[in-house]
Amino acid sequence: MKIITTVKELREELKAYRHLGKSIGFVPTMGYLHEGHESLMIEAKKQTDIVVLSIFVNPLQFGPNEDFERYPRDLEKDQDIATKAGIDIIFAPSVKEMYPNEMKTTVQVIDITSKLCGASRPGHFEGVATVVSKLFLIVQPDKAFFGQKDAQQIAVIQQMVDDLNFPINIVACPIVREEDGLARSSRNVYLSTEERLQAVILNLSLQSAKEEIIKGNQNTETIKQLIIQKINEMPLAKIDYVEILTYPSLKEIETLQQGEKVIIALAVWFGKTRLIDNLLIEI
Amino acid sequence: MKIITTVKELREELKAYRHLGKSIGFVPTMGYLHEGHESLMIEAKKQTDIVVLSIFVNPLQFGPNEDFERYPRDLEKDQDIATKAGIDIIFAPSVKEMYPNEMKTTVQVIDITSKLCGASRPGHFEGVATVVSKLFLIVQPDKAFFGQKDAQQIAVIQQMVDDLNFPINIVACPIVREEDGLARSSRNVYLSTEERLQAVILNLSLQSAKEEIIKGNQNTETIKQLIIQKINEMPLAKIDYVEILTYPSLKEIETLQQGEKVIIALAVWFGKTRLIDNLLIEI
Repeated sequence: MKIITTVKELREELKAYRHLGKSIGFVPTMGYLHEGHESLMIEAKKQTDIVVLSIFVNPLQFGPNEDFERYPRDLEKDQDIATKAGIDIIFAPSVKEMYPNEMKTTVQVIDITSKLCGASRPGHFEGVATVVSKLFLIVQPDKAFFGQKDAQQIAVIQQMVDDLNFPINIVACPIVREEDGLARSSRNVYLSTEERLQAVILNLSLQSAKEEIIKGNQNTETIKQLIIQKINEMPLAKIDYVEILTYPSLKEIETLQQGEKVIIALAVWFGKTRLIDNLLIEI
Repeated sequence: MKIITTVKELREELKAYRHLGKSIGFVPTMGYLHEGHESLMIEAKKQTDIVVLSIFVNPLQFGPNEDFERYPRDLEKDQDIATKAGIDIIFAPSVKEMYPNEMKTTVQVIDITSKLCGASRPGHFEGVATVVSKLFLIVQPDKAFFGQKDAQQIAVIQQMVDDLNFPINIVACPIVREEDGLARSSRNVYLSTEERLQAVILNLSLQSAKEEIIKGNQNTETIKQLIIQKINEMPLAKIDYVEILTYPSLKEIETLQQGEKVIIALAVWFGKTRLIDNLLIEI
């Protein structure tokens, strides 16, 4: 496995593989890798010949009061995990390498970015779309792999890929969970023991909602209230949002109709830590 | 020469050439080709193995009251010119092929798009940056060729290429002029005989300004006034803007300093026709 830190070197390396007719897979991450990332790497290795993992904590997608500075980083441990997963190249550029000059260009996706995390984190998806565009143009992969935990991110990136004709297949991989159901996230490390125990409510409330839907409840408002009630049973939980929307178009929906694909998405604060989780259901 | 109208077919065609190690040149146009375009095609043929010419009148870059509908089109004549210039592929997609679904994604460049034509034509450069991004991702050329007549467009596209890491060299080619000095433009066909005669003032006033600078005049305001005075001698001319700015950063400048690269840029209406011209000078 090679660690590359410059755009120039990465391009040269990949050019050689491309000449040999190898397909390129790409797993963009912010590092501090966990089993969720691991599942993306394993899937990428299955579907493509050469897999590039990028590790870059992108300042553009963090708000001024968010956790860019304290976001957890551990390149050495990440290397071990990537090596075991069979990654061929880690691309770990500095902020200066990615943004050598004042950025005047952004990639903007409207409509689906105004809901859910886009509403709570203004500018976030502009930062995501812009850095993913850059990484796509640097790596030029055949396929790129994203975790379904960031379901809105996948919707935004798929929209961008379709609208701008990126010649890249986006592969969405299922959420990987802890034993007790908490979705794996680099931010879980922020949680105190008490918060960590109560955080299980995210998945539990999603499961209850799913059961309710299976039982025949079609009213999204009552299902949402059920989730909110459940989360509020945990004294340390503070709800950011609970939404049921069509997926991937992210439109409001009052009554669940057969054939509809919907997302139940939620974001919940535990102290200074904001966790997200979601469930996709075909009605 | 091949005419291709779909993204899918173009990609397949170019893939074959790429496998053979051929370099790809790209000349994006809105068609109604003239000697200005011809010079781009000839330069592209010199510098790259396979040249793609795109012909697409992009609705996104026209304002609601602009000339999208009446913009001149003549695909048959364009084919003749392209064949003679040695073009390998004409890519002439329909609006539906380029925009099959509602576009939610745009590429936006700030700062340098707020001056000159960007100030007169709100949304214009957003439309340009977005369609050029799409075309770049469809064609994936090694080099793309643009005319210096649209000097601001080149500055915007170079900025976008640098900021988003497009792996493409932008080649700027000099303005091609008629015998009497009028810059070649597809829009010249709109001009009445009288307007056509008076339109020569664009180039003449730029030449006067250049002489003034060579004589040692460093004051941009007096040089601008000289140009305005000259243009206003033509009764059918109505000035949109006359500006002297640094290039390609497009910043205001009061006193011309040695070593500075500046653009003298102007846009002038003749009836319903808006003509632009410019001169780049290294002081």
